[in-house]
Amino acid sequence: MKKSLGAKTLLYPTPVLLVGTYDKDGRPNLATVAWGGICCSQPPCVAVSLREATYTHGCILARRAFTVNVPSADQVKEADFCGMVSGRTVDKFAAIKFTPVKSTLVDAPYAEEFPLVLECRLSRTVGVGLHTEFIGEILDVKVDERFVGTDNVPIVQKIRPFAYAPGEQRYYVLGDCIGNGYTEGEAFGVKEE
Amino acid sequence: MKKSLGAKTLLYPTPVLLVGTYDKDGRPNLATVAWGGICCSQPPCVAVSLREATYTHGCILARRAFTVNVPSADQVKEADFCGMVSGRTVDKFAAIKFTPVKSTLVDAPYAEEFPLVLECRLSRTVGVGLHTEFIGEILDVKVDERFVGTDNVPIVQKIRPFAYAPGEQRYYVLGDCIGNGYTEGEAFGVKEE
Repeated sequence: MKKSLGAKTLLYPTPVLLVGTYDKDGRPNLATVAWGGICCSQPPCVAVSLREATYTHGCILARRAFTVNVPSADQVKEADFCGMVSGRTVDKFAAIKFTPVKSTLVDAPYAEEFPLVLECRLSRTVGVGLHTEFIGEILDVKVDERFVGTDNVPIVQKIRPFAYAPGEQRYYVLGDCIGNGYTEGEAFGVKEE
Repeated sequence: MKKSLGAKTLLYPTPVLLVGTYDKDGRPNLATVAWGGICCSQPPCVAVSLREATYTHGCILARRAFTVNVPSADQVKEADFCGMVSGRTVDKFAAIKFTPVKSTLVDAPYAEEFPLVLECRLSRTVGVGLHTEFIGEILDVKVDERFVGTDNVPIVQKIRPFAYAPGEQRYYVLGDCIGNGYTEGEAFGVKEE
């Protein structure tokens, strides 16, 4: 039996993504978002949503570029911090002692310390409501050499990404592997005609 | 030191969401997607992306409604299966022996067996490329009574949601709680001016 909770943004998991931008003075900034995800395979695109009131909102529009940084579980303090304060008044890179690196592909910075980074060119903005969705075309993915296999595939259990749980407002690290895509479903023995 | 992997859809975590729709004959269908996420807080909206070639793409456009079902780790076989075959030729609800329930709010079905469901009215479609992004306004969230606390907040460690890892193409269950939102970041002792 199901219970109605009302019209709420409850979804599991939501990601924890740090959006990297330059402001008008060229100062690098990071903003943590949980509203986002991949939205297209070809061209590869990622969407992140931000309120118009945020500093990052204007920075993305001005430079038409951003990075999406995926943090590791040992960076939960840094990730949480970058969602608590505004880049208008706080130099977040300096506060968390992370190293800004200028992307060679787009006009946006990423943090060297995060294990995986997507460099994105702003492709489209969608005004949804309180949040604006920014769709970025992924021009490159850069991953720390320690976290990638010889097949060039990022190794999730080394990256140790984590998720945000709306409602509880807690962070959960990804745990055990529970199956392989396009494989587990074979259990039903049903093929397409 | 970072290694370039090229323009790819690598993001962690991505969710595992089952999109429920009716087809033109009123037959309920489920399609598994990993491209999606919350995209706005007010009105509460969720985005899911589907290729135009999929059966669900046309069903959403015709009924202008869909549900987003969040599976539990013990439903990984069912979730994987619903991403392997098309509703054009397979009755997926029948194949996995799940129970379709007609939403009282929108013209779409959900599965009684999934722990958490979002009932959505199609608000906007965004043609991004190979995928079309469907933005749905969340009219209600329904959760299995067993998985919600007295504060009406879904209990993540009871739901046991899981994530999809692109690249590896593996599923990972959410593991340990590693912190609280808007709390961990206080470690840096920096407040906004």
